[in-house]
Amino acid sequence: MQKNNELYDKYVRQMQKLADVEYAIGVLSWDKEVSLPPQGARFRSQQVATLSGMAHEIFTAPELGEVIEKLVNDGQELSISQQRNIELSWRDLQRSRKLDMDFVIRRSQLVSAGYHAWIAAREANDFKVFAQPLADLIEIKREEARKMGYEAHPYDALMEEFEPGMRVSQLDPLFVDVREQLVDFVRLIREQPQVNDAFLHQHFPQQQQWDYGLELLKRIGFSFQAGRQDLSTHPFTINFSPEDVRVTTRVDENNFATMTWSCLHEGGHALYEQGLPVEYYGLPLGRYVSLGIHESQSRLWENNVGRSLAFWEAQFPDLQAVFPQQFSGVTPTDFFRAINKIEPSLIRVESDELHYHFHILIRYELEKALIEGSLEVADLRDAWNEKYKAYLDLEVPDDKRGILQDIHWAHGSLGYFPTYSLGSFYAAQLYHQIDQDLPDLQESILRGDTSPVLEWLRKNIHAHGRFYSANDLCEKVCGEPLQFRYFMEYARKKYNSIYDLGL
Amino acid sequence: MQKNNELYDKYVRQMQKLADVEYAIGVLSWDKEVSLPPQGARFRSQQVATLSGMAHEIFTAPELGEVIEKLVNDGQELSISQQRNIELSWRDLQRSRKLDMDFVIRRSQLVSAGYHAWIAAREANDFKVFAQPLADLIEIKREEARKMGYEAHPYDALMEEFEPGMRVSQLDPLFVDVREQLVDFVRLIREQPQVNDAFLHQHFPQQQQWDYGLELLKRIGFSFQAGRQDLSTHPFTINFSPEDVRVTTRVDENNFATMTWSCLHEGGHALYEQGLPVEYYGLPLGRYVSLGIHESQSRLWENNVGRSLAFWEAQFPDLQAVFPQQFSGVTPTDFFRAINKIEPSLIRVESDELHYHFHILIRYELEKALIEGSLEVADLRDAWNEKYKAYLDLEVPDDKRGILQDIHWAHGSLGYFPTYSLGSFYAAQLYHQIDQDLPDLQESILRGDTSPVLEWLRKNIHAHGRFYSANDLCEKVCGEPLQFRYFMEYARKKYNSIYDLGL
Repeated sequence: MQKNNELYDKYVRQMQKLADVEYAIGVLSWDKEVSLPPQGARFRSQQVATLSGMAHEIFTAPELGEVIEKLVNDGQELSISQQRNIELSWRDLQRSRKLDMDFVIRRSQLVSAGYHAWIAAREANDFKVFAQPLADLIEIKREEARKMGYEAHPYDALMEEFEPGMRVSQLDPLFVDVREQLVDFVRLIREQPQVNDAFLHQHFPQQQQWDYGLELLKRIGFSFQAGRQDLSTHPFTINFSPEDVRVTTRVDENNFATMTWSCLHEGGHALYEQGLPVEYYGLPLGRYVSLGIHESQSRLWENNVGRSLAFWEAQFPDLQAVFPQQFSGVTPTDFFRAINKIEPSLIRVESDELHYHFHILIRYELEKALIEGSLEVADLRDAWNEKYKAYLDLEVPDDKRGILQDIHWAHGSLGYFPTYSLGSFYAAQLYHQIDQDLPDLQESILRGDTSPVLEWLRKNIHAHGRFYSANDLCEKVCGEPLQFRYFMEYARKKYNSIYDLGL
Repeated sequence: MQKNNELYDKYVRQMQKLADVEYAIGVLSWDKEVSLPPQGARFRSQQVATLSGMAHEIFTAPELGEVIEKLVNDGQELSISQQRNIELSWRDLQRSRKLDMDFVIRRSQLVSAGYHAWIAAREANDFKVFAQPLADLIEIKREEARKMGYEAHPYDALMEEFEPGMRVSQLDPLFVDVREQLVDFVRLIREQPQVNDAFLHQHFPQQQQWDYGLELLKRIGFSFQAGRQDLSTHPFTINFSPEDVRVTTRVDENNFATMTWSCLHEGGHALYEQGLPVEYYGLPLGRYVSLGIHESQSRLWENNVGRSLAFWEAQFPDLQAVFPQQFSGVTPTDFFRAINKIEPSLIRVESDELHYHFHILIRYELEKALIEGSLEVADLRDAWNEKYKAYLDLEVPDDKRGILQDIHWAHGSLGYFPTYSLGSFYAAQLYHQIDQDLPDLQESILRGDTSPVLEWLRKNIHAHGRFYSANDLCEKVCGEPLQFRYFMEYARKKYNSIYDLGL
């Protein structure tokens, strides 16, 4: 036991050292988005590259590998939590060992080339500029899938990086449901008279929006003792420990929704990070489960709470006091209807919460086909445009508003997109469970008090860190695996009250 | 030659790697002062400690030492600049090797204890709480001086860290001049009627001050493409390359001077860093000469330029337009007199530019005596208070406004204080030289154009990096070593015009 404890302490020290370097990279990256003067970019990239190399060395150093391996093989004396940390670190290490340095360098060169080609293609508004670099990226991702190994589908191997344990065999039925249930449901909505959201598109001064955003973050429980908010071009959440979690937002003076739901979305991510167990700093149990579970936390606050009538029944009077002229004569119900307007859009990140999943469905179908080899990059633009016609009834006018809109493929991130939809589906299922577990939930939210939601999430999701896999966590908390029907139920109920669907 | 070039390239790569880590520590430290949420401090300290350890490992790794040593012994084929880089790195390395790890750890523990005792002593307003930890720090600094080695005085060994090449034998005569010439001169001023500076102490709103500060920085040539300004409790300058140089300031709404001269002072530091040769990133020639030379740059802009009548003849109309009510009826000459008011103060950092050197003189005399062993910590408070009576005619009412006011000793920084006075003396001598070299200088400043000053400094000081020692640089640029008389001449001329001293 003594020996194992010493070994385990050594493991913890090395993992914390690794975390210190990784979080330092995080600070440099945050600073790059929020503070960096233009000319600072050159040496900042070099500084990040140097630290990244050092982090890689720490994790792949033989000493750490030997310590972990010994504890895997002879860890009976460790506690359950310690065993789980070791098990997860061992898995991470084995995965990282499957890719040799030559492959990692080749991949990073292709990613760099792909990113620059994507930028150039966007400027030229022409997918052809990006086609060959993307084909190269697809090829190396197929090679990566073979190296990592898989049982049923090469796409499974790539998803593992973002959503451990998720498989095409589980994802396909979910997206069949999206296609079969959501497409018709949205068509039904679009046959109804449209709601009025003109009052959201007036002039809302920057400073008042900013102050209101901070207030909203406070109200949902974001701790400014352990975090802050700043402005950036693209909103994001980053953390350097559970005690330093940072969100960013952006303000559009002509659209009130941009800042508000960015605050609620990133705020949801941040509440998760602030709730992770600080005693496991640097260890697997101090980290989030998967991108899907992370996204479930942001979507739950953004949509299930933050676009509900109960929430705005409570919050709207204060909002109206901040913008009395803009919201003159608007009722909480008017506001609720406006912020839930359903309208197809070409751009994923501007989509409403129903059409959103068609954007993901399209990307999922396309990237899965690219990886399995049933679709060539040469045919990708046509395939993209056909699917937008089929699922969203939209003609794609050009590549910038079509296939060039997302950075993910240019970054070599294939297998990432589905986690966005998984986030919404998990959020609906979790929120259903919260509603079951807390009979007074709606009354509490109507009083302006969302703390029972946060307490439930802290206890049932956040406190576990990475102890459970996403599937196990869902089963443990909800008593069954992920189901699409909770999202459909949520959507039917909400949009029936907005669009009089007669359901 | 081929072999040497390869070795030299290896040296450069390792030094740049070291710089990358050190500047990453810099970003983490900047963030700590400017952005860190309160609870983030714990893990931030750990992250900085980890990176500091890694930086130490890179610099002291046998491989780097061997490369440098080979190039020292066989570097004939290198260029002059390359040889100088190697020579300076070799000197730095040899210095660092004189302190073994055990000593460094003991010292850092005493510094940590000293810092916390100093905080506690300030809270209790009682030097006795700090006395024993300070005595321990003095003892280890004496040990450090012995380990580092010295010829004439142990204080020389400690100054080497901050002002390489400076010796007690050069500093003593300078401070004799301060004592013999400046004390009487200031007494003469204090016999004259006092100037009126009441209009500086009105209400100046935060935002307008902030905007004006940014404008001032622009006007003296600070590049916001390669830098930024933020707020912090204590103003400072930090850089992560010459292309990312950051200053901070603070705003006192009841005192216009605080923000303005903090901008000019830190701006002067920043202009130096922005002017250092970027091609030597990470190498000695890319760094500043010494703290005294660094301070000469801040003082030159703060005082020689920034408290001159010519500067404000040009700038005051725009300032008056920003604060028309506060400066109603005030002339540039009134303003010039007010910002140069001479009045003794107990606190160093609140001092005018003449009394300032008495504060430094006192600290220099005391810390030199502590290090040579002619003064005991037990007698330090009395000695401090006596000197304030002797040089400034002030009674020290308590320890917070006396011996506990500075953090330097608590940080173990002995030998640092003189660099502040050296900065002013170098600034006066350099500015005299600029005036000689540029016959149109005053006309240009009167037109609001200070760019000839910056160009001169860029060419004569900044561009050399650390190529010359402080003494050599002064001789090269001014034709003679550092002299106190340029500061006295500057002071006599300026204050004669303000206080009618009849000189």
